[in-house]
Amino acid sequence: MSNNKKIRVGITHGDTNGVGYEVILKCFASNDILELCTPIVYGSSKILNYHKKALGITTTQINVARDVAHIREGALNLIEVINDEVKVELGQPGKQAGKAAFEALEAAVSDLKRGDIDVLVTAPINKDNIHSEEFNFPGHTEYLEASTGDGEKALMILCNDTMRVALVTTHVPLAKVAQAINKENIIQKLHTFNKSLMRDFGIQNPRIAVLSLNPHSGDNGLLGNEEKDIIAPAIQEASDDHIMCFGPYAADGFFGNNQYRRFDGVLAMYHDQGLAPFKTIAMNEGVNVTAGLPIVRTSPDHGTGYDIAGKGVASEASMRHAIFTAIDIYRNRQRYDDMYRNPLKKQYFDKGKDNVVLDLTKIEDED
Amino acid sequence: MSNNKKIRVGITHGDTNGVGYEVILKCFASNDILELCTPIVYGSSKILNYHKKALGITTTQINVARDVAHIREGALNLIEVINDEVKVELGQPGKQAGKAAFEALEAAVSDLKRGDIDVLVTAPINKDNIHSEEFNFPGHTEYLEASTGDGEKALMILCNDTMRVALVTTHVPLAKVAQAINKENIIQKLHTFNKSLMRDFGIQNPRIAVLSLNPHSGDNGLLGNEEKDIIAPAIQEASDDHIMCFGPYAADGFFGNNQYRRFDGVLAMYHDQGLAPFKTIAMNEGVNVTAGLPIVRTSPDHGTGYDIAGKGVASEASMRHAIFTAIDIYRNRQRYDDMYRNPLKKQYFDKGKDNVVLDLTKIEDED
Repeated sequence: MSNNKKIRVGITHGDTNGVGYEVILKCFASNDILELCTPIVYGSSKILNYHKKALGITTTQINVARDVAHIREGALNLIEVINDEVKVELGQPGKQAGKAAFEALEAAVSDLKRGDIDVLVTAPINKDNIHSEEFNFPGHTEYLEASTGDGEKALMILCNDTMRVALVTTHVPLAKVAQAINKENIIQKLHTFNKSLMRDFGIQNPRIAVLSLNPHSGDNGLLGNEEKDIIAPAIQEASDDHIMCFGPYAADGFFGNNQYRRFDGVLAMYHDQGLAPFKTIAMNEGVNVTAGLPIVRTSPDHGTGYDIAGKGVASEASMRHAIFTAIDIYRNRQRYDDMYRNPLKKQYFDKGKDNVVLDLTKIEDED
Repeated sequence: MSNNKKIRVGITHGDTNGVGYEVILKCFASNDILELCTPIVYGSSKILNYHKKALGITTTQINVARDVAHIREGALNLIEVINDEVKVELGQPGKQAGKAAFEALEAAVSDLKRGDIDVLVTAPINKDNIHSEEFNFPGHTEYLEASTGDGEKALMILCNDTMRVALVTTHVPLAKVAQAINKENIIQKLHTFNKSLMRDFGIQNPRIAVLSLNPHSGDNGLLGNEEKDIIAPAIQEASDDHIMCFGPYAADGFFGNNQYRRFDGVLAMYHDQGLAPFKTIAMNEGVNVTAGLPIVRTSPDHGTGYDIAGKGVASEASMRHAIFTAIDIYRNRQRYDDMYRNPLKKQYFDKGKDNVVLDLTKIEDED
């Protein structure tokens, strides 16, 4: 597949009572972005029109398609995935909105696995509404890990143009964070993060900072031992595996002193530790990336925005960044895989003896 | 005491191998600040001169005094509190530096309790170095609570010009945070915070935001129950006591959406949750305030800065803010106490009957 082909971006509509349709419509209000990709919304034309009307958006033209075989380049495509009647109740939580969100996600993931779309961008869901027997996950990340991972572990990365924050534990109650941290999962996350920084973000030798779990990095054991017993040994072991990782750093000083700017990635131990400073810095431009899986998926870093749903004030900046980031990652992965597909065979010879001549006809076995 | 009298600011030198003396000296490099207060450093002239020399600071003039009876207005005073020989090892942790820090703190607190100084500003200590039989506390806040609190509980507040973040739990290992949170201590902290915002910061009807403990505010129980079981009831009960408090808010969105700007104070559940976003926002101007105690104490929000000790690059901005904030709090408290010292007696009368006349000669009992 050449880089010139327009990338097919599947976009799920998310919770139908939130700001999902609003930020999608606003992203495609001008046609410029269609030069770059072919967007395919998984949703419902009825619900979309409801939102269009409520928001007074008239410009965006929609091509309603039965399936991916019927989509058009140069238009915002919509594939109908909702069969039932869904009542839109702006800003209200409800099981109907959750079911609609799940149906869109299921259809998009199915097309993504078949290769009918190249990347997936998800509009926000309400975890409480979407929760059902079929969707028994705390979020998109965990659902995608189960449905597309082939046994690989997902890594949640929040990024903007200059920083990338990944999490060791994601949607875990705070009381259970400490017991969910161990050497193995830190090392595993470091490997996934390192690979993603190289393959998804195109960074040659990424430098990763690892945050501590306890205040003041445990203050030499006075405020907790996880730094000494778990995190520092994990960093050491990952370093031995040639990952450039450093720390552990106390979270408050790390962000306060702008140290994060000196690293390509930051590995935080838990949700709020990484996300509260990240969102403070990245404001409306944060993107959530699911790394470590065979598929490419991004999303805006905001929620359903019930309090502002239908008011026309939601910013589409984060959704736009999510679309661009997905396209970038897709291209970076192609480039990386092309580059490493047929590596030159390594040719070793013993420099110790001056009578040995390099035999270029001999090909050594790979390890 | 009139507001025109210069306020006596006691300043402890902190860890003698860190940036304490550097930021103190830089604050008083020009004489302007001496118009506002009379600074008294608790430390050692030998150590001070060592730092002056190392940093090439020649301007600041020192008045070395035996005790507070001998201090001079219009000069940077230094009271000798170190009897032993202390070797300065820039940037090195060491027990000598910790002992020197403790002796200065002890002397300053003793003068503060006697009223010989009006406020206390502390330079940073290394908790590991200062730790001893006499100082068995995780930090200044806890030491001051024990030595000056008269049974009152201290509240750690981080502030800059526009925001104030207080903590329910401070120097606690993350594994023990959840079990340290209960309704009683949240309510108690809310009362202390509310009082401090009024009395120390001069805010009439403070609005306080309370953060949640779990990611996404517990997502309606999916990610933890403390929001429903503990925090929301605590907010309700404090509201019933006429404290304007709201929440619980998920920390990441709260800071990311700038919601913090709509509140006079933010109550965070634990150290990194409050401090990482705060320091990200406040950068070099954060001040740590110990509220809830009879005494006034502030400090810069940075550490000993071992990595930059003696290099002349430490910023004195946070120390300067700490000094100004201490002075402001001292004055605000005087004003508040003056205002409420002799309140008018309340005169109630029953408006329901039109034949009742307010009897201004009768004074009702106070509750």
